[in-house]
Amino acid sequence: MIPYELIRKKQGGAAHTPDEIRWLLEAFTSGELPDYQMAAWLMAVYFQGMDPGERQVLVEAMIDSGRRLDFSHLDGYVADKHSTGGVGDKVSLVLGPLVAACGVYVPMISGRGLGHTGGTLDKLDAIPGFRTSLDLETFERQVAEVGICIMGQTDDICPADKQLYALRDVTATVGSVPLIAGSIMSKKIAEGIQGLVLDVKWGSGAFMGSLAEARELARVLVETGAAFGVDTVAHISDMNQPLGRSAGVWCEVREAVAALEGDGPADLVELSLFLASEMLRLAGRDDPQREVQDALASGRAREKLDEMVAAQGGDPAALADSRLYRPAVTVALQAPRSGYLSAVDTYRCGMALITAGAGRRAKSDLLDPSAGFDLNVRLGDQVVAGDEIGRCYGSRDDRVQAAAQELLETLAFSDEPVELAPLIVE
Amino acid sequence: MIPYELIRKKQGGAAHTPDEIRWLLEAFTSGELPDYQMAAWLMAVYFQGMDPGERQVLVEAMIDSGRRLDFSHLDGYVADKHSTGGVGDKVSLVLGPLVAACGVYVPMISGRGLGHTGGTLDKLDAIPGFRTSLDLETFERQVAEVGICIMGQTDDICPADKQLYALRDVTATVGSVPLIAGSIMSKKIAEGIQGLVLDVKWGSGAFMGSLAEARELARVLVETGAAFGVDTVAHISDMNQPLGRSAGVWCEVREAVAALEGDGPADLVELSLFLASEMLRLAGRDDPQREVQDALASGRAREKLDEMVAAQGGDPAALADSRLYRPAVTVALQAPRSGYLSAVDTYRCGMALITAGAGRRAKSDLLDPSAGFDLNVRLGDQVVAGDEIGRCYGSRDDRVQAAAQELLETLAFSDEPVELAPLIVE
Repeated sequence: MIPYELIRKKQGGAAHTPDEIRWLLEAFTSGELPDYQMAAWLMAVYFQGMDPGERQVLVEAMIDSGRRLDFSHLDGYVADKHSTGGVGDKVSLVLGPLVAACGVYVPMISGRGLGHTGGTLDKLDAIPGFRTSLDLETFERQVAEVGICIMGQTDDICPADKQLYALRDVTATVGSVPLIAGSIMSKKIAEGIQGLVLDVKWGSGAFMGSLAEARELARVLVETGAAFGVDTVAHISDMNQPLGRSAGVWCEVREAVAALEGDGPADLVELSLFLASEMLRLAGRDDPQREVQDALASGRAREKLDEMVAAQGGDPAALADSRLYRPAVTVALQAPRSGYLSAVDTYRCGMALITAGAGRRAKSDLLDPSAGFDLNVRLGDQVVAGDEIGRCYGSRDDRVQAAAQELLETLAFSDEPVELAPLIVE
Repeated sequence: MIPYELIRKKQGGAAHTPDEIRWLLEAFTSGELPDYQMAAWLMAVYFQGMDPGERQVLVEAMIDSGRRLDFSHLDGYVADKHSTGGVGDKVSLVLGPLVAACGVYVPMISGRGLGHTGGTLDKLDAIPGFRTSLDLETFERQVAEVGICIMGQTDDICPADKQLYALRDVTATVGSVPLIAGSIMSKKIAEGIQGLVLDVKWGSGAFMGSLAEARELARVLVETGAAFGVDTVAHISDMNQPLGRSAGVWCEVREAVAALEGDGPADLVELSLFLASEMLRLAGRDDPQREVQDALASGRAREKLDEMVAAQGGDPAALADSRLYRPAVTVALQAPRSGYLSAVDTYRCGMALITAGAGRRAKSDLLDPSAGFDLNVRLGDQVVAGDEIGRCYGSRDDRVQAAAQELLETLAFSDEPVELAPLIVE
């Protein structure tokens, strides 16, 4: 294969043969194909796309670069959920224990936050003692014994994707539907799951800014899952404002725990219960809604969280300790004018989290677990100038002050009442 | 500047600020900007283009990366010609001495052949003793004393272009109009010329396959020249068949000498005289056509070639030595059928030259100066099956045999007479 010819081919809009895609991936991961040629090819893919056949081979090649787990020996259904990322999204921490408490196995390989989006792993890492780096054998054993394990990507799972993602991240080729789909689906399929529920976000805090883009990504993800024999459903949910009341690191853990204790914000609870019941529906359960309601109301889901935390070396008591990560600095956010909250630049809310210390600009950045913000108003709410509409907090005064200022700038108010979009679009 | 943001900007189709383009070039040449980010940016430029302002800054930045020559102390007009490349194009070897013989100074920095196109430098290198690597002082002195000097690009002239071209060459981003224009014009403007005549080729052996593409490139080249105060005219000429009768290395030198001795093929002579007279027209001469005719007929142009060869260390007697580089192997080409020559895949003629040994696949390939081919038929000519329509030659039997076969496959014949396109389109 001649790399130049393959770049030319994609540049001209043609489809690659399966052998060409496999060769590109293998030559790239082995170092035979230099980064600059892969970067040119990725940008050509960004502009020219990939057809269904190409996308399937890409996913296959990424899975084949590592191990594919196998849970077929278990006595129950095996499923996972994936969200395309946003601000304040702590659904996994609520939904995982809920679904596991209902007897569906949840082998969840999760990620860290980067840029404006948060990551489940960062929140779990803040639980004292909790281990998110496990070998695959430990992971598999815990899934079988506890029913759920959440850990980070290992070198055994889709190493080609890991290497490719690092290059996409610095060449502005992350936002390409076939590449996003390849990256998400290869990792999920390698988990050895039978069912997958996708939460595709759209709006000001999502990678897909428009509903049309979100629908296109959802379509491609479902198609890819089906091609690999995984029952896949995708729903589209609203990310035009942060999910829940709190966004940050430890404050999100606290909010997830509150939700599991029956005291969560309405949007977080609604989305978590809905996606959890979808996983049960894929598992063939007769009355999925009732089952997740019962698991929540009975406290079994809350217990499952403690069980998972303990199994991964964490201290369950920390989840209830209100003194842990108490922020040194808190700045109140006051409504700059009277009116209805009409828009939130949620992407910039995520960037304000970086300023506060709860987000990463570069992979090597360390997080301040005490940092974050609460927003007590939601789109459509009416406020009076001077009302306390939220708080920003963390350990460094200058950063929290700056983040509070940035946050206020993300909010727009109008004199007229605002029409609200549904949380779960479809 | 954040490279990621600059790639995103071009990817989205926006125009860069002058500072952004300068930073990209400087960071790339200094090694601060890694190849893979530059490759992604180049591919984004390929798809999104550059506006006139961006193109001008690109050329400026490439010139500023090295030295810009200054011939303003000379007592005459300073001009050059550039062709976008093709097969059998030895116009520079005819036109350069012609124009210099008419008293216009010609500081010509030329290139080597790569891929299907030949390069003037390779032909000059074949002249025993001839030096094409000179320092800029020697170059400037010879232009002043002899009126013409042809040498290769040095590290002093547009080093940024040299480095960028190497990356474009392996990332399939050579064929982008703003990048082609930037590369050509920066080097020509850095020569310190007052006038520039461009020969933009179109057709089966040109980089621009269609007339529309050739016109677009011509337009951008002229606009760029004007922006830098260089009198620039662009003509479009036909490259749907090799120029002249011979293509290769030494055979092209011989054909150029023949043309200067009044015995050249009609197309080569027509194009050389036309472009030479255009240079004289830019210099403000009253009757350019007559002047170049006189320089040719009087033998002064032929003498100027000897003068230049001698000044650059070459042996003028070699030009007349018919035993030099006599090919060890010659294979006759026979018309495979009767009919009219209706099409020549000139790109593949150039690739056949690589097979014969007269072209380069990689920059490091060595050339066989005796290799090449003669084609005695031109588009529209009628042949009878079995007619000897040309010859292929070189030093290695296997390569010449294979090249001859490839050459025959580039020719298409029809039963009907063929409509001919003009050599000089506009």
